[in-house]
Amino acid sequence: MLIVMQSSATNDEIEKVTEYIKQRGFDAHISKGEDHTVIGAVGRKVIDKRDIELLNGVKEVIRITSPYKLASRVFKNEDTIIEIKDVKIGGGHIGMIAGPCSVESYDQVDATAEKLKRYGVKILRGGAFKPRTSPYAFQGLGEEGLKILREVANKYDMLVTSEVMEVSQIPMFLKYVDILQVGARNMQNFNLLKSLGEIRKPVLLKRGLSATIEELLMSAEYLLAGGNREIILCERGIRTFEHMTRNTLDISAIPVIQKLSHLPIVVDPSHATGLRDKVAPMSKAAVAAGCDGLIIEVHNSPDTALCDGAQSLYPEQFEELFIELKQLAKVIKKTF
Amino acid sequence: MLIVMQSSATNDEIEKVTEYIKQRGFDAHISKGEDHTVIGAVGRKVIDKRDIELLNGVKEVIRITSPYKLASRVFKNEDTIIEIKDVKIGGGHIGMIAGPCSVESYDQVDATAEKLKRYGVKILRGGAFKPRTSPYAFQGLGEEGLKILREVANKYDMLVTSEVMEVSQIPMFLKYVDILQVGARNMQNFNLLKSLGEIRKPVLLKRGLSATIEELLMSAEYLLAGGNREIILCERGIRTFEHMTRNTLDISAIPVIQKLSHLPIVVDPSHATGLRDKVAPMSKAAVAAGCDGLIIEVHNSPDTALCDGAQSLYPEQFEELFIELKQLAKVIKKTF
Amino acid sequence: MLIVMQSSATNDEIEKVTEYIKQRGFDAHISKGEDHTVIGAVGRKVIDKRDIELLNGVKEVIRITSPYKLASRVFKNEDTIIEIKDVKIGGGHIGMIAGPCSVESYDQVDATAEKLKRYGVKILRGGAFKPRTSPYAFQGLGEEGLKILREVANKYDMLVTSEVMEVSQIPMFLKYVDILQVGARNMQNFNLLKSLGEIRKPVLLKRGLSATIEELLMSAEYLLAGGNREIILCERGIRTFEHMTRNTLDISAIPVIQKLSHLPIVVDPSHATGLRDKVAPMSKAAVAAGCDGLIIEVHNSPDTALCDGAQSLYPEQFEELFIELKQLAKVIKKTF
Amino acid sequence: MLIVMQSSATNDEIEKVTEYIKQRGFDAHISKGEDHTVIGAVGRKVIDKRDIELLNGVKEVIRITSPYKLASRVFKNEDTIIEIKDVKIGGGHIGMIAGPCSVESYDQVDATAEKLKRYGVKILRGGAFKPRTSPYAFQGLGEEGLKILREVANKYDMLVTSEVMEVSQIPMFLKYVDILQVGARNMQNFNLLKSLGEIRKPVLLKRGLSATIEELLMSAEYLLAGGNREIILCERGIRTFEHMTRNTLDISAIPVIQKLSHLPIVVDPSHATGLRDKVAPMSKAAVAAGCDGLIIEVHNSPDTALCDGAQSLYPEQFEELFIELKQLAKVIKKTF
Repeated sequence: MLIVMQSSATNDEIEKVTEYIKQRGFDAHISKGEDHTVIGAVGRKVIDKRDIELLNGVKEVIRITSPYKLASRVFKNEDTIIEIKDVKIGGGHIGMIAGPCSVESYDQVDATAEKLKRYGVKILRGGAFKPRTSPYAFQGLGEEGLKILREVANKYDMLVTSEVMEVSQIPMFLKYVDILQVGARNMQNFNLLKSLGEIRKPVLLKRGLSATIEELLMSAEYLLAGGNREIILCERGIRTFEHMTRNTLDISAIPVIQKLSHLPIVVDPSHATGLRDKVAPMSKAAVAAGCDGLIIEVHNSPDTALCDGAQSLYPEQFEELFIELKQLAKVIKKTF
Repeated sequence: MLIVMQSSATNDEIEKVTEYIKQRGFDAHISKGEDHTVIGAVGRKVIDKRDIELLNGVKEVIRITSPYKLASRVFKNEDTIIEIKDVKIGGGHIGMIAGPCSVESYDQVDATAEKLKRYGVKILRGGAFKPRTSPYAFQGLGEEGLKILREVANKYDMLVTSEVMEVSQIPMFLKYVDILQVGARNMQNFNLLKSLGEIRKPVLLKRGLSATIEELLMSAEYLLAGGNREIILCERGIRTFEHMTRNTLDISAIPVIQKLSHLPIVVDPSHATGLRDKVAPMSKAAVAAGCDGLIIEVHNSPDTALCDGAQSLYPEQFEELFIELKQLAKVIKKTF
Repeated sequence: MLIVMQSSATNDEIEKVTEYIKQRGFDAHISKGEDHTVIGAVGRKVIDKRDIELLNGVKEVIRITSPYKLASRVFKNEDTIIEIKDVKIGGGHIGMIAGPCSVESYDQVDATAEKLKRYGVKILRGGAFKPRTSPYAFQGLGEEGLKILREVANKYDMLVTSEVMEVSQIPMFLKYVDILQVGARNMQNFNLLKSLGEIRKPVLLKRGLSATIEELLMSAEYLLAGGNREIILCERGIRTFEHMTRNTLDISAIPVIQKLSHLPIVVDPSHATGLRDKVAPMSKAAVAAGCDGLIIEVHNSPDTALCDGAQSLYPEQFEELFIELKQLAKVIKKTF
Repeated sequence: MLIVMQSSATNDEIEKVTEYIKQRGFDAHISKGEDHTVIGAVGRKVIDKRDIELLNGVKEVIRITSPYKLASRVFKNEDTIIEIKDVKIGGGHIGMIAGPCSVESYDQVDATAEKLKRYGVKILRGGAFKPRTSPYAFQGLGEEGLKILREVANKYDMLVTSEVMEVSQIPMFLKYVDILQVGARNMQNFNLLKSLGEIRKPVLLKRGLSATIEELLMSAEYLLAGGNREIILCERGIRTFEHMTRNTLDISAIPVIQKLSHLPIVVDPSHATGLRDKVAPMSKAAVAAGCDGLIIEVHNSPDTALCDGAQSLYPEQFEELFIELKQLAKVIKKTF
C-alpha cells in the first residue's frame, strides 16, 4: 500500500500517518519526492484504505497487491483445466454447453438433447429454478426439472449444468448435476458462495450485470478459499447505457481475465444479447477472442418456449453455427 | 401490448401476427396508420415480447402496462406510512436511522446509541452479518451482534434494523430486529424476497448497484405479492463510470419513485458516497428533494472501526447535521 | 509517478525500467517492499504511463499528481467568485440563471424576462444556436436570437448567457452576451476551448454526458491555460443505465468539485431530468448540497414552446420554487 | 406516435389530447383497450413527445418511426460500399486501415508505411491534429503532418485518412486526405457534421464514448442530409463502469448496426482497449462478428512514440495478426 501525502503535508502529519500504520501492524518506508512524500506500508494486515485517506495531509492511498490471491496467475501460472469424464474446459480446450433456457418437460429436453448430442455437444444446460424479475412469471419446474435433465443426460451420455439459487438447494443439486451454475444476480450472494466453496464439484460463476472483473475474481476467491478449485468464470454481458441489446457483452473481458487469472472463462451470448439473430455473431467473436467455452440456448421449438424463446436458437441454426465455430477455433489453434 | 408492424409488412404477415396473439389468449385490435399498422393486444396473459418481435413483419413490440401492480400508485394512491410504535416513515414523516456500520462490541454500540438517542434518533442500525467482497475481511459478529443491538435498543427505547443475508437467518432476525434490511447485492435474491414476503415485519429493500427503478419496484412486488405490505425502499447509489465517489447517489430517484409508487423511499448517503465529508451535503440534498428517511453511519470512534470507518460520522458531526436537516425539512413542510 | 514492479520482477528488469525513465528525464527512487519493489519517478515531463506498463516486470504505474494545475485548490485555495456588475457567483453567492430553452421571438423572451426580473432573477438564458440530435429539428434563430436576448436584457437590466457552438461564432457572441456557454457535447471540442481561453469574458462550461469530473477540470484547464480566469463549471446530468430520467443528475459532483477546485459549480436540473415536475426537487437538492448557482428553463407558455417545453417551468411555478430555494439557502448560510 | 392514456383517464382528457395533436397537424386514431385507451397520432410533423406526456391523463408516448431516414435500411436496403480507387469497404469487403497514432516525422511515417504496404495495407492513418484531454500534451504537427501523410501515401500508392477537428480545417484536409475522420469527441459537433455533409469525400464517423447506436445513426443522418453519401461508421469503445480496459468495445454494435443501416461499420480496437496486447484478440473478435473494416495503430518504434505508443502494435505483430485475420475472414466468407 502506498500513501501519497499532499504536497503541503507537514513533517508532523507525515509522522502521524507513519505511526498510524505502524500501530496497525505495517512497516513504513518513507520516500521523499519533489512534490510528494510517499509512504510505503508493507504488511499483510487488511485495512480500509479510506481510513488512511481521511488522516490529515494524505492525498491518496493506493493498494498495490491484488485483493484476490488464489484466483491469480501469480498464485498459479498454468491454466486451470476443468476435466469431467472426457470433457475439458480451459488450456486450449473450448467447452460447448447448450440446451433450453428452462426445462419444460421430458419430451422437450429429450428432443433438444438428442439433436445436440448428434452435433457433438457434451454438456447439456437447462433451468429448473428460474430467477425471474417478476413474481408472476414462470418460476421453473424445480426438482422435477433437475430429474429430467439427469435422465436425458444419462440417456445420451452427456454432462448436466443448471443454476442453483439458494444454499438449501445445494444437496439436491449435487444429486443431479455435474456443474453448478451461480447466476449473475447471485454473484455476490456470499452465503451461497461460501457453501459452494465447500463442495467438490465444478462451479460456473457468472459475472454480475454491474460487476467489475476484479469483483468477479473476488467472488471466485470465495469459492477457491473454501477449497473448491474447479471454478469456471462466465462473461454474460454488463449493463451500460446502450439498450439496443439487452446487455453489452464485454468481449475484452476474455483477454483481460486470461492475463490476470488461471481460471477458464466461458461466454453466454444468449443472455447477453437477448436476441436470437445476435447470438451467432457474438459466439464467433467470443471464440475468435480466445474464450474457453460457450453457453448457448437452443430449444427444439423456440416459438412455444415458456421462457426466453426469443434468444434461443433453432437446432438447425445451432448446427450451422457450431460448424463455423469449429473452423474459427482452428484458425486460432484451439479445439472444441 | 402494442405491436408495431414494419412499413413494408404484408397483409399476410399482419394476419399471422394477429393469429399468433389470439392463440395465446389475447384480443387483437388493428389500426392502420400512414406508415405503420399497429396491433393492440389486449389481455392478461404473460408473454415474452421478444417472441413476437421475431415474427416476420414486426418492427417493435411495446408493453404498456407496468409489470408491477401492488407497488404502484394505480393500485394504491395514498402514501404508505410505516408505523412502528411512535415512529412513522412516509407521508410527510422523515425517518432517521443511524448507527455503526458493524456491531463490534456491546460498549461500542452502547456508546453510539446513547448519543444518538440524545440527539433524537429513534431507529438504531448496525450490521451483524456483513456482505464483504473479500473472503478475508471481517464478516460480522453474527447472532451475537443482533443480541447486542436488541439489548442496547431496549435500554434506550429505540427500534433496531439490520441486514439479513439468507433465507435460513430469517427466524433469528425476527427475534431481534424491528425492520429487516435487504442489501443492494441481494435485491434480486428472489428466494430471500419470497421468504420475506411471508413475514409480517417491515422490510427495508435497498436498490441494487445497477438496478433500474423499475427493477427495484419489481423486487418490492415480490415482497408485496407475499402479503407483506410494510416495505421501505432505499436508494444507495448506482454504479456509473464516475469513480470519484464510490457510487453515484441517484437523488432524482426520490421524485421518480414517489410518482410511481406509494411506498416510502429512504436514502443511504454513507454507502453511496463512501466518504465522510460527502455524507452531510448528500443528506441535505436528499431531504430537500423530499425523501422519506435517511440511513446514516455514525460511530463513536470511526478511526478504530472494523468496517467502513471512513464513511462514518463522528457523533458530534451527526448532531450538527441533524439540526440542519430538521431546518431544511421544515422549509419543505416535512418533519423528522 | 510510482512504478510498482511485479513480485516476480528480476533485478535486471528493475534496472531496465530505471534506465528507461532516467532517459526520459526523470529521477528514480527505488524502494523495496516485502512483495513489490516500487520505483518513484520524479520529474516534470509528460509521459504516457501505459508505455511503462508494457515494460517487462512492471505491474502497474500510478500517477500521483493531478493532470490539471490552474483549476486546482492547490494552485489557488480561495473560491473564485465571478463578478459581473452587481452579480456574484461563487464563494457563498448562488447565481440564478433562468429563461427559455430557445429564443423564439422578441415577444416570447420579453414576456418571460419581465416576470423573471420581477421575481429577482438577474441573468437571462436563451438558446440562439441549438445543438439538436436530429438535422430535421428546429435549429434556433441564430444571430437574430442573440439580438433579441440583448435587447430584452437591456430593457430589464439583466445579464445574458447563451451557448456558442463554433470557433467562428465567438466574435458575434462577444457583441451580445455576458457569459458564453459551452454545451455538454462540446466539452471536449478542444479548438473551441482554446479560442475561448483567449477571450476575457466569463465562460460557463457544461460537463459532458459521459465526462468524468477530472475530465471536466481538464477542459477548464484549457480555458485557464489560455488566460481566461472567469470559468463557471456546470453539472447537467450524466448518462447511466437508468432511463426514467433523461440523465442522472450527479449531485455529489458539487461537493467533490468544491474540494478539488476553486471554480464555482452551478447545476442545470432542467436538462438533467428532462421533465418539468422533477426540476423543483432537483433544484432544491442542488442548493441544499451547496451549489453555486442554478440554470433553470422557464417559458411564458411551455405548451407552445418550439423546444424542450416539457422541461420548462411555468413562470408561476418558478416563482414559488425560487421562494423556497431562498429559504433553503438561508439554512445552509448562503444567499441568492 | 402512440399515446397511451392512463387507465383512469376520463373521456374529457382523451378528447383534449386528441384536439391537442390535431391542432399540431396530426390525424388521431383512437382504440380503446381493456386497460388503456391508445391514440395513434399519424403525421409527418416533428413534435416533442414529452410535451404530450405532460397533458392530463397521458401515461406514455411512444415514437414508432426511426428519427433517422437516409441512414436506415428502410430507405436503402442494399449495403453501401465505399469505393476509392481499388479499395472497397462494405458489402463483404473488409477494409484495413493502419498507421501511427500521430504523425511525428517523415521518416517515421515512411518507415511504418513501407512495411504496411508490404503486408497488404492500402489505407494509411495518422493524426496531424490531435484532440488531447490535457492542454499540455503534444497537439500534433498540423498541416505539416498532413503533407507528410500525403507524400508517403503517394510514394507507396496508398490512401490516407486523418482526423479533422474544426470546420475551418476542412479545405486544408480536402487537399491531402482521401477519407476525413470525425473523432469520438466530435460525433455531436453538429456544425462540423453539417459542413462535412456538403463535401464529396468519404467521412469516417466515430461513435462517441457515451453515444447510443441511435445517436450515431442520427449523426450520420446529418452528413447524409447534406448530400454526402459516402459515410463509414466506426465503433471505438463505449464508456462503462469497467476500467480494466480504457473503454468497453461494443462488438455487438456490429450486427445491430448492420441490421438497422446500410452503412459500413469499422472497428478501432486500439483506442477502445488502450493496450497493445488486447488489440489482437479484439481485432479477431470484430472480424468474426462481421465488421466491415478495422483501424489499427502500428508504429515502427512504439517505445519512442510521442502519443499512444502503448496501444500501437510493432510492425511484426501486425503482420502476424493480419495473416490470422485473413484466415478468420475466409471462414465467415468475407475478404480483406
